[in-house]
Amino acid sequence: MEKLFQQIEEHASLYQHWLLSMCNQPSISAQNIGMQEMKELVIQLLEDLGADVEEVVTAGYPIIYGQIDNGSKRTLTFYNHYDVQPPDPLAEWMSDPFKARVENGQIFARGVADNKGNIAARIAAVHAYQKVHGDLPVNVKFIIEGEEEVGSPNLKKFALENPEKLKTDAMIWEGGMRNVHDKRPHISFGVKGICFVELRVRGAAFDLHSSEGAVVENPAWRLVWALSTLKNKHEKILIDGFYDHILELTEKEKAFFQTMDYDEEHTKTHYQIDNFLTGVTGLELKERLTAAPTCTICGLEAGDTGQGAKTVLPSRAKVKIDFRIVPGQTPKMVIDLLRKHLDQHGFRDIEIEQLAGLLPFNSDSENPFVDTVINSMKEVYEEPPIIMRNLAGSSPMEKLLANTEIPAAQIGVANTGSNFHGPNENIYVDDFIKGIKATANVMRHFGDV
Amino acid sequence: MEKLFQQIEEHASLYQHWLLSMCNQPSISAQNIGMQEMKELVIQLLEDLGADVEEVVTAGYPIIYGQIDNGSKRTLTFYNHYDVQPPDPLAEWMSDPFKARVENGQIFARGVADNKGNIAARIAAVHAYQKVHGDLPVNVKFIIEGEEEVGSPNLKKFALENPEKLKTDAMIWEGGMRNVHDKRPHISFGVKGICFVELRVRGAAFDLHSSEGAVVENPAWRLVWALSTLKNKHEKILIDGFYDHILELTEKEKAFFQTMDYDEEHTKTHYQIDNFLTGVTGLELKERLTAAPTCTICGLEAGDTGQGAKTVLPSRAKVKIDFRIVPGQTPKMVIDLLRKHLDQHGFRDIEIEQLAGLLPFNSDSENPFVDTVINSMKEVYEEPPIIMRNLAGSSPMEKLLANTEIPAAQIGVANTGSNFHGPNENIYVDDFIKGIKATANVMRHFGDV
Repeated sequence: MEKLFQQIEEHASLYQHWLLSMCNQPSISAQNIGMQEMKELVIQLLEDLGADVEEVVTAGYPIIYGQIDNGSKRTLTFYNHYDVQPPDPLAEWMSDPFKARVENGQIFARGVADNKGNIAARIAAVHAYQKVHGDLPVNVKFIIEGEEEVGSPNLKKFALENPEKLKTDAMIWEGGMRNVHDKRPHISFGVKGICFVELRVRGAAFDLHSSEGAVVENPAWRLVWALSTLKNKHEKILIDGFYDHILELTEKEKAFFQTMDYDEEHTKTHYQIDNFLTGVTGLELKERLTAAPTCTICGLEAGDTGQGAKTVLPSRAKVKIDFRIVPGQTPKMVIDLLRKHLDQHGFRDIEIEQLAGLLPFNSDSENPFVDTVINSMKEVYEEPPIIMRNLAGSSPMEKLLANTEIPAAQIGVANTGSNFHGPNENIYVDDFIKGIKATANVMRHFGDV
Repeated sequence: MEKLFQQIEEHASLYQHWLLSMCNQPSISAQNIGMQEMKELVIQLLEDLGADVEEVVTAGYPIIYGQIDNGSKRTLTFYNHYDVQPPDPLAEWMSDPFKARVENGQIFARGVADNKGNIAARIAAVHAYQKVHGDLPVNVKFIIEGEEEVGSPNLKKFALENPEKLKTDAMIWEGGMRNVHDKRPHISFGVKGICFVELRVRGAAFDLHSSEGAVVENPAWRLVWALSTLKNKHEKILIDGFYDHILELTEKEKAFFQTMDYDEEHTKTHYQIDNFLTGVTGLELKERLTAAPTCTICGLEAGDTGQGAKTVLPSRAKVKIDFRIVPGQTPKMVIDLLRKHLDQHGFRDIEIEQLAGLLPFNSDSENPFVDTVINSMKEVYEEPPIIMRNLAGSSPMEKLLANTEIPAAQIGVANTGSNFHGPNENIYVDDFIKGIKATANVMRHFGDV
């Protein structure tokens, strides 16, 4: 291990050079800027490692698929993306977003955190390992897509059409970060899913004078009554069967909550709130964040919402609801239960449209890869890692991994002040080096398992 | 009576000439066009009747006050307004809105229905009566304001500062209309009041990512829960004490419902609804329209209401609610009960802002003036009148009449196709003549009572 880490430190400036060259090449999928050049640059770096590289054609930008198959008994796959967000607002950048600036141990560039820093770290780790040991302890695969920043519209199709390429024992997913305040690195082993719907209620054919409210049905009232049957003031979701299929947390998963940090006081001050929902705090708050499904009104609209006093009886009312779902639940399950619930409560007329849906994904915490990652991280970082069964948000992780048994971990080179998607996106050089070490260490331990 | 009506018919072209001269004079309060000229024209017509006329200065346009005091034991007052709505959209007019066009027994001009036709009808009725009988059977007063189309902002102050001018035994308020389909004239003796409020709920200081919905309170949910305590699916308003002070309908008032018409089938087809609220129909529907208070969501707003899938935890939610209130209720009473209700249901944090408030107004149906008007109308119109205790809407009637015992009736020269405030505003010449007769007949009978 020492030799490996030493190699990484000695080659730090080479690896940083790789990273800067990627950052200096714009690759904005939303605007079709530099995508071809970036793809070629990544392919070149992979080929220099000795990987077999293939461009997989999609309806959008190609997916770069690379593999180094040395006959090891285990295969580890790195999922990343070579596209970045547009750099706007440009005026808020202190320097050119596509001319990486290194200052006081920080690298500033669009995409350095999300997620060229991680691509470079994966490649550098393989390189270092090869330099020290001649060969890798595992087979590795790279799946580097070019459309993550526009919603990965072709990723699921890739997974369905290329089962061979997806064959792997474990996956390092995109990236992760480290706390700015206490330096603790994050590890997460999944994401919540999402079922995002719009409910629509119709009344008369057009808005009426509100005096007609005495005799003509108001879709806004119907919507309120329907919503009030969905969740109660204690935050219990009242849809029959909603909680039935949720997988119970294992003791090991529960133990992960102990490692999480959530600065309640700072958050309350920042959000200007007196308390968290239903007074939740401590471990329970952390559990709620990552393991409880939600039912959130994201948008409500009916009638006149402008200034002043327009007394109208609305003809339409609608609500957008975001269900964050957890292992055991699926978007389809939520839609079906919701439809049944509305019908049974007399709201057969309320229309449901699904706006988005992603399955939850969690690695089986008993899979040896989970401990491998945790232990590998502990050996690299001075501070104890924050371990999360899954993030509170959602991601396209499920497009590759849903319905597989493949465990996946998110670890990476960013930090909580990285300004993902914003101006002056940055990482620390030190985190980049640690990210290389962590990746190499995971390969090493996973080869041993 | 026959001589009086004959006089009116013989002078029809003179009276129509008065009306057309008023219509040809623009008087748009919202745009300060022609207000001075219109005021002078009305004053001249009143002075020609021998009225004592006074311009009452207000913060806006002056109120024309005229009286003919002949020592009769009763006084009848006509409330009208000399301003009109802007003529837009001009392109939709078949002819110049301020050049009255008479065609096939209809007069087209901005303001002819609302309400210069009624000003002319009141003046013509006085003129005809004087011509036939030499003197009037009642004292008459005219209160003709110039700001009705901009919300009568100075009318209440006028009432408070001029109690002498308001002293009267009864009032003919602005105007009314006749059905186009079956020719039945409308008589109404009041208006519902209104209490229009906005409720506001706050969550975090700014919108959050919806994954935070697991632990941060959602003001949209709080609003939904609060609203669901205000009214139930059976349309019962659940605010404690809300119905307590409502005056019971008298038998006479109930009998008025028998006269009302409401074309349920036509309305259902037009509005594209299957049924009225809670399946209400017939007499009950009419009673609901005019005698039941309402609680109508006019506007609901929270979070993201745009297209697509923006998963946000809103920081603010608000609703506009219009309570149409009935005799016995006041806007203040509603606000107080609503505040108490929200506090008691755990919504102390929900802010209430009153956006508008008007008291209800109903004439005492036992006041002899009520029968006088009804009988006078029956003698003029071939079809039986539609008698309404009050309109389903609200009006500034209360600004002059609230907390007085003065009975008031709305009768007039418009029709259900008059296009009030719209293009090609019109009345029928025949309705204008009948309106003069009805006014004269009310004076005659009221003098006899």
